[in-house]
Amino acid sequence: MSELKIRRMSTADAGFDEALGKLLAWDAATDTQVSDSVRAILADVRVRGDRALLEYTERFDHLSAGSVNDLEVSAQRMAEALARITPAQRDALECAAQRIRLYHDKQVQASWQFEDEDGTVLGQQVGPVDRAGIYVPGGKAAYPSSVLMNVIPAKVAGVPEVIMVVPAPGGELNDLVLAAASIGGVDRIFTLGGAQAVAALAYGTETIPAVDKIVGPGNIYVATAKKEVFGVVGIDMVAGPSEILVICDGETPPDWIAMDLLSQAEHDEQAQSILLSPSAGFLDAVEESLMRLTPTLERSAIASQSIQDRAALIQVADLDEAARISNRIAPEHLEVSVDDPSALLPKLRHAGAIFLGRYTAEALGDYCAGPNHVLPTSGTARFSSPLGVYDFQKRSSLIGFTSVGASRMGKVASVLARGEGLTAHARSAEYRIIDDE
Amino acid sequence: MSELKIRRMSTADAGFDEALGKLLAWDAATDTQVSDSVRAILADVRVRGDRALLEYTERFDHLSAGSVNDLEVSAQRMAEALARITPAQRDALECAAQRIRLYHDKQVQASWQFEDEDGTVLGQQVGPVDRAGIYVPGGKAAYPSSVLMNVIPAKVAGVPEVIMVVPAPGGELNDLVLAAASIGGVDRIFTLGGAQAVAALAYGTETIPAVDKIVGPGNIYVATAKKEVFGVVGIDMVAGPSEILVICDGETPPDWIAMDLLSQAEHDEQAQSILLSPSAGFLDAVEESLMRLTPTLERSAIASQSIQDRAALIQVADLDEAARISNRIAPEHLEVSVDDPSALLPKLRHAGAIFLGRYTAEALGDYCAGPNHVLPTSGTARFSSPLGVYDFQKRSSLIGFTSVGASRMGKVASVLARGEGLTAHARSAEYRIIDDE
Repeated sequence: MSELKIRRMSTADAGFDEALGKLLAWDAATDTQVSDSVRAILADVRVRGDRALLEYTERFDHLSAGSVNDLEVSAQRMAEALARITPAQRDALECAAQRIRLYHDKQVQASWQFEDEDGTVLGQQVGPVDRAGIYVPGGKAAYPSSVLMNVIPAKVAGVPEVIMVVPAPGGELNDLVLAAASIGGVDRIFTLGGAQAVAALAYGTETIPAVDKIVGPGNIYVATAKKEVFGVVGIDMVAGPSEILVICDGETPPDWIAMDLLSQAEHDEQAQSILLSPSAGFLDAVEESLMRLTPTLERSAIASQSIQDRAALIQVADLDEAARISNRIAPEHLEVSVDDPSALLPKLRHAGAIFLGRYTAEALGDYCAGPNHVLPTSGTARFSSPLGVYDFQKRSSLIGFTSVGASRMGKVASVLARGEGLTAHARSAEYRIIDDE
Repeated sequence: MSELKIRRMSTADAGFDEALGKLLAWDAATDTQVSDSVRAILADVRVRGDRALLEYTERFDHLSAGSVNDLEVSAQRMAEALARITPAQRDALECAAQRIRLYHDKQVQASWQFEDEDGTVLGQQVGPVDRAGIYVPGGKAAYPSSVLMNVIPAKVAGVPEVIMVVPAPGGELNDLVLAAASIGGVDRIFTLGGAQAVAALAYGTETIPAVDKIVGPGNIYVATAKKEVFGVVGIDMVAGPSEILVICDGETPPDWIAMDLLSQAEHDEQAQSILLSPSAGFLDAVEESLMRLTPTLERSAIASQSIQDRAALIQVADLDEAARISNRIAPEHLEVSVDDPSALLPKLRHAGAIFLGRYTAEALGDYCAGPNHVLPTSGTARFSSPLGVYDFQKRSSLIGFTSVGASRMGKVASVLARGEGLTAHARSAEYRIIDDE
């Protein structure tokens, strides 16, 4: 690879707004061939169940099995995985799991109710979904940290059964992934992948029980399948490429910031890393660090491509302007690498996760800070939230009228229902009106 | 219409499970022609903005305007609407709005944070979306109650700007709808409808500002458009036909229960009304009530069709069995018309809204009880919730490490990142490790 070229911009440039818009543009191109293929697989698994699953698993994962039962990972295989990883890895997974649990415990939503002056009870009953499915990619992109981040919120929510699917191309399974599943509390694991695994979780088959919510990352087939079954089951967000925005006053070591940017860039070629700073000298220094550090990475080919195609070092007038640009971007990860991040915090309205201060490397949040690393991408932090316990809980409204309350409110409902021409609604309410009142 | 035929079933019937499955089956058939047409409109409005909006509004709503500005409803028109409705209607709308506000106030989620033993700050910052869009159907299905139910949670969440779109075929606007918008706190109203209105809200045009979340009911074009733009903006659920499940011990007046069932049936021909009772005699009595009352309704043609096609009176062994069937159905509306509904409540896991006791007509919940009437349909209460303040709020994770915490957790992150082959992640964390520790 020839010398790395890194985009430099300034908010003072003519046409900056438009240039920023172009830089951020990312459109999940809907590939008709992918959609058609996914729809066919979904329909087939829905109708033919286990038989279809076995066929697709043989075709796509080169894994033959006599029955879907044979694709369930045994307790013995799980124990082997735990025994095979290093003690340091096991400690790290357990430490991460404990911190993730502690943090997510604070997200649990409780049922509530109150009485109005007529004694009418109003409230919301909150409870977990019955069963959740977690998709875990197989092969090289097998991330044990993602297993923890997806299963722990479900378990903290009280979901009785969490089913994980993970493709095992040629039968290969990652021990760290299995160990994370065990530590995180996954109930059952099937070595299934692709759209067929999503179909099995959404519709159920003879062997795979249907779930109520499907979460977890996957390739374009998995993402398309999840979007298709949305409505039959709940899903988490359909994620775009990972991104980081760093706001720095220029006082953090340039190598630190460069490596933070590279930790996104190494994910994949479409990942996006952007730095905002009022200091031109600091942007120069980070540029120099990037040139020097990128070639030293194990994943330097991916990182170089991502930096060249999608990164930018942007000079801003001041930190307030940086906050305004950050709100426009609504980044997945936002590092606020300044002396007093709490002063800037009230101005930061949209971000998946906000990393405060020079010591808070985004990578800590990916693994063991406690908060979830499944975050809204591509500007969707404007309206959506990190994966959390609340994604595995749902609410029922509670309404319990006394006869006095029903009579009083029945009169109001009657006026409104008749205004809408819904007279059965009106009469249903009117039956409960007490005549002599 | 010839004599109404009402389906009778019993859990003791051979093949009951399968018959229930058939009764509940409802598949939002994806109409390719609708999808294609919607996609074309979305793409066109995205590119041509106001010009495309004006053309579609002329074509579909027979409403000509020189500019999209002319389609904004003026403050004067709003004041006229408020002046034109009856005082009883205005009182009823204001009473309903007040109760809806009171209830939704309890749903507001606050930011939180805590410190761990290293002084590391962890938490979640909760805030409203910047701008929300509300779709309100025009013409005959114009429901002022829906306006209140959609705008009030947004305003309670603190959304600074709520934009309503409502088609005005031939220029016709419903005064009650405008009055509800005014009382509910809608900021701006445009007389736009269909997929073109959804496109304008999602992408923005020269005149219509893009929103972050689109909610509200609509026809198949609107529903398809909302599903298409999901990801560009947030949306609420894609709703199916309305349904009610009543569990009754047999002691509520049969006419009350019949009218409660009819209040769903009058919505549309595909609405579903089901009654579960252990008393065969009560089921007979409700059947007789339905035969007698249905022809007396203003919307008897719709209600008869719905009752005949989709209703069922089902005999159960006891109330516990009724609860189990209810959990399987996961109904939008669940009336628990028994002496002690609180005894049954812990067994009811999935429902959009639960109406407790004989006095709590479902219709009260539609208008003025306080809880939202936008509820998950078609079994989606298994995993989703009533529309609420939480739909207009979103969260950012907060992570602020001290140098000691970053050092300690950096070691954990390093082990896990290296286990995943993400060495830039590892090195970013390792920079913050204090060497002499």
